[in-house]
Amino acid sequence: MKKEEFVKEITNIDEDFAKWYTDIVLKAELADYTDTKGCIAIKPYGYAIWENIQNYADAEFKKIGVKNVYFPVLIPEKLLQKEKDHVEGFAPEVAMVTEAGGQKLEEKYCIRPTSETMFSNLYSKWLSSWRDLPMVYNQWCSVMRWEKETKPFLRSREFLWQEGHTIHETAKEAQERTLQMLEVYADVIENLLAIPVLKGEKTETEKFAGAESTFTVETLMHDGRALQAGTSHYFGQNFTKPFEVKFQNREGKEECAYQTSWGISTRLIGALIMAHGDNRGLKLPPRVAPIQAVIVPIAMKKEGVLEKSNELFEKLKSLNYRVNLDDRDQYSPGYKFNDWEMRGVPVRIELGPKDIENNKCVVVRRDTQEKIEISLDEIETKLQVILEEIQNNMFKMCQDIVKTRTNVAINMDEFAQKLEENQGYIKTMWCGDAECEEKIHEQTGAKSRCIPFNQEKISDVCVCCGKKATKMVYWGRQY
Amino acid sequence: MKKEEFVKEITNIDEDFAKWYTDIVLKAELADYTDTKGCIAIKPYGYAIWENIQNYADAEFKKIGVKNVYFPVLIPEKLLQKEKDHVEGFAPEVAMVTEAGGQKLEEKYCIRPTSETMFSNLYSKWLSSWRDLPMVYNQWCSVMRWEKETKPFLRSREFLWQEGHTIHETAKEAQERTLQMLEVYADVIENLLAIPVLKGEKTETEKFAGAESTFTVETLMHDGRALQAGTSHYFGQNFTKPFEVKFQNREGKEECAYQTSWGISTRLIGALIMAHGDNRGLKLPPRVAPIQAVIVPIAMKKEGVLEKSNELFEKLKSLNYRVNLDDRDQYSPGYKFNDWEMRGVPVRIELGPKDIENNKCVVVRRDTQEKIEISLDEIETKLQVILEEIQNNMFKMCQDIVKTRTNVAINMDEFAQKLEENQGYIKTMWCGDAECEEKIHEQTGAKSRCIPFNQEKISDVCVCCGKKATKMVYWGRQY
Repeated sequence: MKKEEFVKEITNIDEDFAKWYTDIVLKAELADYTDTKGCIAIKPYGYAIWENIQNYADAEFKKIGVKNVYFPVLIPEKLLQKEKDHVEGFAPEVAMVTEAGGQKLEEKYCIRPTSETMFSNLYSKWLSSWRDLPMVYNQWCSVMRWEKETKPFLRSREFLWQEGHTIHETAKEAQERTLQMLEVYADVIENLLAIPVLKGEKTETEKFAGAESTFTVETLMHDGRALQAGTSHYFGQNFTKPFEVKFQNREGKEECAYQTSWGISTRLIGALIMAHGDNRGLKLPPRVAPIQAVIVPIAMKKEGVLEKSNELFEKLKSLNYRVNLDDRDQYSPGYKFNDWEMRGVPVRIELGPKDIENNKCVVVRRDTQEKIEISLDEIETKLQVILEEIQNNMFKMCQDIVKTRTNVAINMDEFAQKLEENQGYIKTMWCGDAECEEKIHEQTGAKSRCIPFNQEKISDVCVCCGKKATKMVYWGRQY
Repeated sequence: MKKEEFVKEITNIDEDFAKWYTDIVLKAELADYTDTKGCIAIKPYGYAIWENIQNYADAEFKKIGVKNVYFPVLIPEKLLQKEKDHVEGFAPEVAMVTEAGGQKLEEKYCIRPTSETMFSNLYSKWLSSWRDLPMVYNQWCSVMRWEKETKPFLRSREFLWQEGHTIHETAKEAQERTLQMLEVYADVIENLLAIPVLKGEKTETEKFAGAESTFTVETLMHDGRALQAGTSHYFGQNFTKPFEVKFQNREGKEECAYQTSWGISTRLIGALIMAHGDNRGLKLPPRVAPIQAVIVPIAMKKEGVLEKSNELFEKLKSLNYRVNLDDRDQYSPGYKFNDWEMRGVPVRIELGPKDIENNKCVVVRRDTQEKIEISLDEIETKLQVILEEIQNNMFKMCQDIVKTRTNVAINMDEFAQKLEENQGYIKTMWCGDAECEEKIHEQTGAKSRCIPFNQEKISDVCVCCGKKATKMVYWGRQY
């Protein structure tokens, strides 16, 4: 994409959401397609968002004892096959290395689709006593899953993520770690990305291949479709038994360890785009925005304007604001306004000769379009307040959408009708039977999002079969 | 490796350096072998070193306009083949993906051995005007080269690195960027890792496949062998022509951009081990050490010892020292001393009942074994001073080794004799002919390290052929 095209019309968000999404990805220069089919190139602006997510999450991980490692990208085929459910889940979408150094390999390697098998294998080598436990390791890396249909950030054949893998002395400790990591994800997504989450447990059908139980943080996008934003799995001894991850317990007996894994990925960038964006383009929450404020000089060639703009730029930079000065001379201020709005920068600061005369500047909020005149003497403190207000307001706007788009259904007619009228979450009671789940999916296109931790009693019977209900479930069409 | 084995004897460094090296890697728990042949698992302690290198280098990169990106790990085979020298250099050691999603692929993919081709291909898509230049992108990722002989960190089939790839408007600007990045590497290696570097240009024979010129920072290890620690390449238009990375220049004419690339890798962890280590084990410079100081309580069960140790631990931690408290009750203080020395922690702080009585602690330096009594009221300030002293002393010790191990030779007899007597660098004059270079390698096992920026005139003639010399060169056996 060439520079002149940046501020072209983007597709209307309510007319064609999928096309709008692709427009944003390309025009805001978050990523681009490559000659490697189904794989994207993450460009500087997109990658800077990922770095901010990484830095935030990694600091939280380290506070609770997570240690980073790096294990091989290639997994011997025989390792992947050791856990039955796992290999069934992943084998169909694995990429295989069969030649290297100009020769056919005797043993094929998979490019990791996820690393439970590699971690289990190494843990079995390293674990000996209960004193070695827990091992709480994580790696930031890329994984590969040969998807048929791909979409930038949401479903790429290669994507970046972190995968945490832990082993513990007791089932209880492992289960606690599973939930602890889910809370970290909820924190990242709500407090950094300003997207409210729904926390709960996945049904048997929807859980991870090889897991005992899978927990999830679900989010809702602008179009009412749900997006699974992070998952945390409890494996029990499902992997540690076939991989013989054994230790001598406190009673001197041999026991297999209890295991978890958990991950978030560059999918979160897709969530950011689709949860907050509008017809002006991307809209980034200040805490995760690579550029929090952009200074646009007005009548740039008038005496003193560029000097004063530069002065303000340097001052804000020195106060650790992530700030940019747009002094490009080939574009008009109007072009620049559109350009930076499209790129989702939370605040624009306009500075012209008249403003300078009055010792002020004009701050324009991306979220509300509100224009605020601020004295140049106060900008350094007021800017922080405005950015916090934007962060909170964006979270609240998403909360309101979730509220509006969450409906209750007590029978299938109501389910289908409400989902059609108002795409989003449908809350229902459920008997716990996978057959009903399948039926609901067939009839409505909605899948179970999760069995939320906050259970409510809506009725006594399953929305589908009318038999006795055991759980309240959220449903929705998904990305 | 199990915990009980940590403090077993390590091989004597001067008897079998290769075995000593492997001992350190495994026993200090930097990395371990895996079932993926030729690939290692980097364990938490090793990875923490890499994170410190990353953080330091990445901050320096960002100061000079480098932007991080992430491009696909799979490169279509036809892309790799576009630059003749490059494909000749890399094709023999490339790993190929030929099957995915259960099917044979129509087009094979290489796992990136380096990404000049991928970057060039994408740059050609994005570049249009001189206004788009420079593009100064970098990625932190893993690469794969199917080496026949491997050694942890030094030569792994997969390794972690950063690869910077830039394109520029003019040759001059690109050349300046090449040298600028070399200076950053010299800074990282000298000021963070405390290893002195030799800066210079590679000969035609030794330069990167496809480069116009390659610059290097060379380091010398404990055994006198050289290790190439970082390289920066100037490509001219070697890639931008076949890849058509074109732009409209200021005169309105179409021109191909000028390109660079540069990289450092987890090899630097190998350099750290081999430049500083001794018979007690690893020896880490404080600035890069994951643990800068370890507190070992003496007579831990005596009243007040653990409390006071904890108090000191919390205090130092709050002052941003990277500190550890070893309160394991299954080991004696003596065991712990050996254990932490083997792991290269720069400073040990001993704290026993008598020390507490006298309001002091004993600080033991890893580099000199010196014991220093310090008042508990002063430890927080004095520790910083001691760590800086250790950092400087370790750099100086390496400088002395380079000095001692650098010899001048004016003919081949002298070359061979001096190298045999005192493994290290041999400085000679050279005619510039690749045949002499090859001959020297055959006769002595030494390769040209570089044509150093600081040229000296040793004699008038080539050390090998006796013809007129054009350059002064450093030679050495290498890792």
